[in-house]
Amino acid sequence: MLERYGHGGDLESAAEAYGRSGFLDFSANINPLGPPPGVMERLREALPSVIRYPDPGHRALKALLGGRLGLQPEQLCIGNGAAECMALILLGLQPRRVGIVEPCFSEYRQLSEQFGAQVLSVFGNRNSGWRAVPEAIAGLMRSVDLLFLGQPNNPNGIQYDAKLVRSLADEAERCGTYLVVDEAFIDFIPEEQRQTLVKVLHRYRRLILVRSMTKFYAIPGLRLGYAAAHPDVIQAMTGKQVTWSVNGLALLAGEACLQSGDEYENATITLITEQRQWLMAEMRKLGCEVDEGEANFLLAALPAPWTAACMQSELGARGVLIRSCAMYPGLGAEHIRVAVKGPEANEQLILAMADVMRDQADELADR
Amino acid sequence: MLERYGHGGDLESAAEAYGRSGFLDFSANINPLGPPPGVMERLREALPSVIRYPDPGHRALKALLGGRLGLQPEQLCIGNGAAECMALILLGLQPRRVGIVEPCFSEYRQLSEQFGAQVLSVFGNRNSGWRAVPEAIAGLMRSVDLLFLGQPNNPNGIQYDAKLVRSLADEAERCGTYLVVDEAFIDFIPEEQRQTLVKVLHRYRRLILVRSMTKFYAIPGLRLGYAAAHPDVIQAMTGKQVTWSVNGLALLAGEACLQSGDEYENATITLITEQRQWLMAEMRKLGCEVDEGEANFLLAALPAPWTAACMQSELGARGVLIRSCAMYPGLGAEHIRVAVKGPEANEQLILAMADVMRDQADELADR
Repeated sequence: MLERYGHGGDLESAAEAYGRSGFLDFSANINPLGPPPGVMERLREALPSVIRYPDPGHRALKALLGGRLGLQPEQLCIGNGAAECMALILLGLQPRRVGIVEPCFSEYRQLSEQFGAQVLSVFGNRNSGWRAVPEAIAGLMRSVDLLFLGQPNNPNGIQYDAKLVRSLADEAERCGTYLVVDEAFIDFIPEEQRQTLVKVLHRYRRLILVRSMTKFYAIPGLRLGYAAAHPDVIQAMTGKQVTWSVNGLALLAGEACLQSGDEYENATITLITEQRQWLMAEMRKLGCEVDEGEANFLLAALPAPWTAACMQSELGARGVLIRSCAMYPGLGAEHIRVAVKGPEANEQLILAMADVMRDQADELADR
Repeated sequence: MLERYGHGGDLESAAEAYGRSGFLDFSANINPLGPPPGVMERLREALPSVIRYPDPGHRALKALLGGRLGLQPEQLCIGNGAAECMALILLGLQPRRVGIVEPCFSEYRQLSEQFGAQVLSVFGNRNSGWRAVPEAIAGLMRSVDLLFLGQPNNPNGIQYDAKLVRSLADEAERCGTYLVVDEAFIDFIPEEQRQTLVKVLHRYRRLILVRSMTKFYAIPGLRLGYAAAHPDVIQAMTGKQVTWSVNGLALLAGEACLQSGDEYENATITLITEQRQWLMAEMRKLGCEVDEGEANFLLAALPAPWTAACMQSELGARGVLIRSCAMYPGLGAEHIRVAVKGPEANEQLILAMADVMRDQADELADR
């Protein structure tokens, strides 16, 4: 089991498990184009600056982000990854009960329990791409102090309609619950299809958007994310943040990424949209049930008798890593999640999966 | 006031305050030799690895640190700076009352209050380098759940004798208090003079050592620190740590620093020891009262009528940053802290201070 630390992308555990390195990693959902052009060069030039402390106020990055999103610096909290933003939300707002819609990103439960909250959940419906019915989410929201909603949700990649999210945000204001919308992967969706409330954020006191900069811009090793919310919420969050929590190169990379122009962003979205379609079709040819996600990853159910554990281990031995989703409440032993990468890599994944399935069929035939 | 975020080294605030850049920064206590030879090169080569997640288990760095300190991986917690280690101690052990010996590093109080603890303090005695009497520390320890002790202490740079610390650690076990010894600057002291309990750590369940890797190895922009303690304490700490809290380049830099050999470490200690003596003598010639610290910084009281605020602002306009210590409980408006840097920089500091004092004397004479 590669998810010893609860996540994909753990190449050290993979190396221990399979006695090899040089993996093609579909277990972490990182932009296959790598960082925007020029960002690595800016980082290289900026390396000598590691002898100085980072700006504890994150002033330059907040100004750039604020300009792009139409937000003031006091509506933004820069975090050491989106995960730190979630931790600061929990530490700052101290919800006693947290609601989640499963299956979802494991950190919602993990962090909530870590910081002493009780977790209540509703489950999505397999037939609607693991979306939960609106009434169930609204009902859960009235029973908790804070609700996490993935948009698009991880591991299935689906979005809820912005109208629904807006009605939830309205309900959140009414019933005094914080609504945390995790938009970590929303940048991968074409702008006109993004169901985000960022433009009406200023109307809400209890709506919090969390975004990651490490997935779309392919810098997960540096750690960078942010939250956007009412200044009171931001103040509660930064009141729990450790000084210099965000390192200097992450700040600088974030600035460089935001300044790199939209050509890279458009190219990423085009690539992911095309490749997701291709990968979905090919996985279906292999007998997988694949959900109609909109993000840079796909949730799939393997055909019987395949289990995620078995497929993960067979692919791992062949140098290809996938995420087993067997431990997600609401999903089963047959569920896997794969990142959408570039054409060559995706082809290798499909070839490797076909190879594994053929070998197994041969073995059964030989018996 | 440059310490808007509570600390020195804030070059952004300095740039705003003085309308210039290119400061000679004595307000942050960083090794003037810069990172060990080869570390920048290793970082440059490793830059492409930022497209991958860091090892959430910090396995390679723990193995190296453990080897050097004679500790097992389960006795170590790697943190996003020493400040995160302190936060994790507070979050993991949940002390209701925290004791501090003032004047001391402001984060002991800041973080304790941030995470809901009440802070009790005793004060050091000016005539013994701001050391508190052992009975006062022991008495405080019996009144709190956790005690922070700086060793050497910031901002005065003094150490307590290892025998005293040992007796405090024994007392801590007896009365059920956690003793957190902050050794962030201990690497700057010649090994034979370090009053550390690292070699007897395994005998204690309530002794925690916190160390920084960013000051001695000059990589504060990357954030890296660690705590050493009983495995139960480490488990309580990591139970509150956010996944991937330590970024990949910090882990790699830490490994490279520990592998860089002892020539750099010896050269640093020799330089700091010599230059501290020189700086102390020169500051005394300028009329300052300087404490006999052992670390890479000096606490000084300016001669009347000088205040720290005034000297800081005059030096800032000349491109030299110092730390005002006026806000440290127990210290006065006349207290400043300066880092010990290399010979040229130290000379520039002394010349700039002399210049400020001369200008002021001229101005007074003109009236």
